[in-house]
Amino acid sequence: MVEIRKPITVQEAVSKVMAHMPLMPAETVSIDDCDRRVLAEDIYADHDVPPFNRSPYDGFAIIAEDTNDASRENPVTLKVIEEIGAGDVAGQAVGHGQAIRIMTGAALPEGADAIVMLEVVHEKNNGKEIEIKRRIKTFDNISWKGEDTEKGTLLLEKGRQVTPGVKAVLATFGYAKVKVYQQPVIGIIATGSELLDVSEPLVPGKIRNSNAHMMISQVKEAGGIPEYFGQLKDDFDHSFRAVKAALAEVDILITTGGVSVGDFDYLPDIYKKLGAEVLFNKVGMRPGSVTTVAYLPDSGQLLFGLSGNPSSCFVGFELFAGPLIKGCQGLKNRFLSLAEATLTHDFPKPNPFHRFVRSRAAFTNGQWQSSPVGLDKSNVVTSLAEANALMVLPGGTRGYKSGDQVNVLLLNSEGREHFCL
Amino acid sequence: MVEIRKPITVQEAVSKVMAHMPLMPAETVSIDDCDRRVLAEDIYADHDVPPFNRSPYDGFAIIAEDTNDASRENPVTLKVIEEIGAGDVAGQAVGHGQAIRIMTGAALPEGADAIVMLEVVHEKNNGKEIEIKRRIKTFDNISWKGEDTEKGTLLLEKGRQVTPGVKAVLATFGYAKVKVYQQPVIGIIATGSELLDVSEPLVPGKIRNSNAHMMISQVKEAGGIPEYFGQLKDDFDHSFRAVKAALAEVDILITTGGVSVGDFDYLPDIYKKLGAEVLFNKVGMRPGSVTTVAYLPDSGQLLFGLSGNPSSCFVGFELFAGPLIKGCQGLKNRFLSLAEATLTHDFPKPNPFHRFVRSRAAFTNGQWQSSPVGLDKSNVVTSLAEANALMVLPGGTRGYKSGDQVNVLLLNSEGREHFCL
Repeated sequence: MVEIRKPITVQEAVSKVMAHMPLMPAETVSIDDCDRRVLAEDIYADHDVPPFNRSPYDGFAIIAEDTNDASRENPVTLKVIEEIGAGDVAGQAVGHGQAIRIMTGAALPEGADAIVMLEVVHEKNNGKEIEIKRRIKTFDNISWKGEDTEKGTLLLEKGRQVTPGVKAVLATFGYAKVKVYQQPVIGIIATGSELLDVSEPLVPGKIRNSNAHMMISQVKEAGGIPEYFGQLKDDFDHSFRAVKAALAEVDILITTGGVSVGDFDYLPDIYKKLGAEVLFNKVGMRPGSVTTVAYLPDSGQLLFGLSGNPSSCFVGFELFAGPLIKGCQGLKNRFLSLAEATLTHDFPKPNPFHRFVRSRAAFTNGQWQSSPVGLDKSNVVTSLAEANALMVLPGGTRGYKSGDQVNVLLLNSEGREHFCL
Repeated sequence: MVEIRKPITVQEAVSKVMAHMPLMPAETVSIDDCDRRVLAEDIYADHDVPPFNRSPYDGFAIIAEDTNDASRENPVTLKVIEEIGAGDVAGQAVGHGQAIRIMTGAALPEGADAIVMLEVVHEKNNGKEIEIKRRIKTFDNISWKGEDTEKGTLLLEKGRQVTPGVKAVLATFGYAKVKVYQQPVIGIIATGSELLDVSEPLVPGKIRNSNAHMMISQVKEAGGIPEYFGQLKDDFDHSFRAVKAALAEVDILITTGGVSVGDFDYLPDIYKKLGAEVLFNKVGMRPGSVTTVAYLPDSGQLLFGLSGNPSSCFVGFELFAGPLIKGCQGLKNRFLSLAEATLTHDFPKPNPFHRFVRSRAAFTNGQWQSSPVGLDKSNVVTSLAEANALMVLPGGTRGYKSGDQVNVLLLNSEGREHFCL
């Protein structure tokens, strides 16, 4: 007898997975090793920015009042009493009739209340004097202590991914070490006696294993550490032992294949024997309807059983495993971003269930345009290389025409906090 | 005397840089090590996909004609003569009145011309026979050899970055090793006596070096291998020796600071002493107008002299160094993508030159919206963490109002082949 499974909605399936999300512990790493990691601590300013009143330009620190009567016809001459480089501090105060030559970023010397830019003065007497031909206002060209950021300000909240800009903030505020969430180790197992290794020649009846390689990349992109346990033959005992052994070494386990209702689909029985609670084993979506997720209450581990079909596997990963892997590292924006797009081609197939069409989305002429790639036969592997989006065609719709508005999930986007189709 | 520099346009500056772009040699790496690398060879199908006529479902291989008279009232019974798993090949041909049980992906046995799905048959006599209650058409449910991709088809052109989908294609077609472009080694030197290391406490007049850390991340994101040579004091001989030593170890060298026209800006003299041709030393843009790029004819090396100001440094990197680093790895889509966006705030400053405003772009309600982040004072470092886009305000414009249409360069996007503002 064929087992009848009851499909749940994609939204429900995502909720069930996220409700079982573990949170990885934090670890402290060097600023040199924090790229793309997720902050596990809020980042505060340890000092005012600027840390002192400073010059935004190369120029001269003066007392503005001294230039009150300056004009083209009646230039004011000031005596240059000192020259300080960036990082130096003036050894004396500026008095009336005096100026100190100052570099971009250098601290405003005592006594001075304005900076006059290098370009607007005339240096004379071998740089010992300067001539100014216009009135400089008090406080001109001063970057004030704390005007950008006051000491103690919350700069970045935890849950943010470290980008080059975040790194600049960390460095500026002395975070030589920073707390980030640990990266989960994601075990990957491919099942199916028909699978050949990528280096093996093709033989009748067999195909090369592409899912494992694809998922290793997907895990890396999601910030996880992939650990590949190889390909399993269609044999229950062998498969059970392999799954059990892998679980001892990983935070989360993903398998591809073996989750359908065929004779050689052993994963359901493996989940049973492990004592795992099956969160769902059928989702109202195409491709990937057999996507299964199970939960081990004792260890808190999740087991993702993705379809052996490459496109189903890809979609199942992006919808369920990817957000979970990002989320358990504390990343706030863990879900794929959604955009409205204009369909560029007819897509006449009816959609009894939510359909996720591998698509190429491009922003042109002020709008997103979405083109399906490949035939959307579930075994078309080449289309995965072209797709940068999944077009969402809701279940219960009859087909779409070129020019229709559709939603697309953007695969390489910044991500968003909440799941939405 | 203050040197007067003649600014060139951003477009000209980009053209000059790209005209001096080296192309890295190719290297062969394992499929396991090719993530995010750029393909240096075209990828072809080494076999038909599917490689043989196969079943897309679990079911039974039959001769369709045998079901011509089948109906609910008059089911046809076929004898199951064999059962084959995925990867197996049937040991015999299907004859009239016979069926072979077959798994998803298994090869169509000889003699059979249709697959009937498991779900629509009634198994009886312990699986030794099946009953079919409707007519099955010839060629039903067969995935034909080569219907997705024919052997020899060009699948991916060189110049593509390896994504999970690309990896799936490589694995499917037996690319256990793949030719990719080498990653350039990018030297980074920070200049300025005012710079403290990130781990040092602040002292009067000094600031922490954030640019080097930021650029190490930017180089990684662009696919380069960063090599950091530390911070240089404002001393010509010391700086010259350090730059010269670094050049011996890197493909491209980036410095921050020291490119203005101040007394301690040694880079112009260092370029001269090295015999480098200065491609430009002033660009009609804010921030980053002092961005300098020089070229060493003998070695073919480029030297990027970015401003010491964090925002100027960031923008100079993204506009000039990033595309060059991507381009010299053979990446086609080397430039930042451009999108039209609606400005969400007034931006009243006039723009004598092209202005690149650090912004947050979000796609909401069917359009991109762009919000400036921070004050756009060129020393506001915190805004770099929030920015995911650079808003482009063309030179010669008077100021912008909320609701105006502007162009934005998207920092984390897929990229495009041609530069455009």
